[in-house]
Amino acid sequence: MAMISGGFSYSALRLRLPSCSIPSSRLPVSRTRSSGSSASMDSGDELRQKYMEFPYVSGPHRDLMVELLSSVETRLGSSLQPCTLPPHVRHFGNPAGTAYACIQLRHGLPSSQIDFILGGWIHSKLPSGGALNITSLSGYLNSSTDAPNFRLELIQSIPTSLILVLDLTPRKDLILHPHHLKTYYEDTLLDRYRQRLHMLPEVSPYISPSLYVRAAVSPTAILVSIDVGAGETTNIEEIIRDHVGPVAKELLQFWIESCACTERRVGEPETAYLAERDRIIKNKTIELDLGSSFPRLFGQDVADRVLTVLKEHYNK
Amino acid sequence: MAMISGGFSYSALRLRLPSCSIPSSRLPVSRTRSSGSSASMDSGDELRQKYMEFPYVSGPHRDLMVELLSSVETRLGSSLQPCTLPPHVRHFGNPAGTAYACIQLRHGLPSSQIDFILGGWIHSKLPSGGALNITSLSGYLNSSTDAPNFRLELIQSIPTSLILVLDLTPRKDLILHPHHLKTYYEDTLLDRYRQRLHMLPEVSPYISPSLYVRAAVSPTAILVSIDVGAGETTNIEEIIRDHVGPVAKELLQFWIESCACTERRVGEPETAYLAERDRIIKNKTIELDLGSSFPRLFGQDVADRVLTVLKEHYNK
Repeated sequence: MAMISGGFSYSALRLRLPSCSIPSSRLPVSRTRSSGSSASMDSGDELRQKYMEFPYVSGPHRDLMVELLSSVETRLGSSLQPCTLPPHVRHFGNPAGTAYACIQLRHGLPSSQIDFILGGWIHSKLPSGGALNITSLSGYLNSSTDAPNFRLELIQSIPTSLILVLDLTPRKDLILHPHHLKTYYEDTLLDRYRQRLHMLPEVSPYISPSLYVRAAVSPTAILVSIDVGAGETTNIEEIIRDHVGPVAKELLQFWIESCACTERRVGEPETAYLAERDRIIKNKTIELDLGSSFPRLFGQDVADRVLTVLKEHYNK
Repeated sequence: MAMISGGFSYSALRLRLPSCSIPSSRLPVSRTRSSGSSASMDSGDELRQKYMEFPYVSGPHRDLMVELLSSVETRLGSSLQPCTLPPHVRHFGNPAGTAYACIQLRHGLPSSQIDFILGGWIHSKLPSGGALNITSLSGYLNSSTDAPNFRLELIQSIPTSLILVLDLTPRKDLILHPHHLKTYYEDTLLDRYRQRLHMLPEVSPYISPSLYVRAAVSPTAILVSIDVGAGETTNIEEIIRDHVGPVAKELLQFWIESCACTERRVGEPETAYLAERDRIIKNKTIELDLGSSFPRLFGQDVADRVLTVLKEHYNK
């Protein structure tokens, strides 16, 4: 859910999307149910399995996502409520059967600092014959802490190229709160992860066309395009295995231990400031990104149904 | 004054600076006066001339700076007070006579929206035999308006390369104030200037090593490295003349007309918020950038004298 986790990828990429008239093909979800809500009768266990199995990506990409989701479950699972999204929002597709998505959203227990953890994948066939695949994992904290949120997205539409978004997104204005910059970004040497990836010749900065996205990321954000070229011996999967994976796992580990699980318990009026800023970020994500990309990917009806529910859950 | 205008360049570049032991050479300022305050007896007119003449850069680089300063004087001069910096801060050098700077700071009249306009140049011989040249122009607005500040710096240490910083720096947190993002950056299509420069093959993103700098710039900031390579037929001067110059002039024109001269008159508590955020930005500039680079460039004594005065004027 590139679009769900932070408004990053989909409108940012401005890829040409498959229209509903593209012939459908064999896809591992039933399309016999109405209105694109193709998995509405699936049980919770089946939905969880679909969410975890990342059926449209393979190799190191899939391994990385499974490992990251497993880390979250292992370390944070006891602080999270079960996913309460209805089945038609946990797994859905477009009426033509060319685009599918799987989402899991688990709110934190009231005793935790977690607002919610969101993960999932999107797959959409492209008119070119290829496919757009997005896998993502996000962690939003609640206003009892000012620690950053976590955001990871891997976006691939051709085999030789990948866009990676990996960030601990700030919850405060880093200019008005220089101590926040120092605590979470400078003293922690977070920039070393970005520097590691930028040393690779295949990596170049990715500049999102969305000014909101550019404004929302941290100064150590990893927003990169990884391009190997058709004739190169290195492939994207190797770069994910050897470079992206280690960095993503270290950053998630840092976020879990130093942000989600380290108690901060800020007081008023900081709590009110954080709650308001978080509210804006979550609604901007729905409005700017999902609102523009979901209808194109899944059709207006499916998009409306999914977005209405997601908006409620984002603001719970 | 790259360092003065916004904390951008000097500590960011981390260039190796000339030490005081480097033999001095013929430079167009007297070095017979004490403690590096080499122009302490110059008259106001002579100081203004030194400031405007940019003696260490030439061709399109010098032409551009003279034109920009002239635009400011023509359009905003009647809203500005005379420069009240003492002569030893308006023009100074290091004791060895290898580094010189010229600064002009003019506060706005109380009836204007301008806090101050700051411009100037730095020249420092490098151990390699070359020289570091920085030219800059900044405009800071006061808390009666929330419009962005203006910042331009051209930083050159070798003939085939230039770092350009050109930005309308936001005065508010663009996440908490999405209307500000829309008004000044989205609706104005400001990103087209950055896009124009990024289309040139010689231009690549410049990532400042300072996290504070990365956090302070706008989402449409032009932070680029322009590299022509020794064997290329295009040179830096042509790129300044044909591309950097037109963009810088248009952006300055936009800032003067739509930011400095368009009345906003925000009310409390916004004024207090802007004043506090501006105060932090100005002090961070002194602390992070000038405080680390001036002593290395000009020696501790000269740096202390200059910085003490500048800090007073920044916070007037």
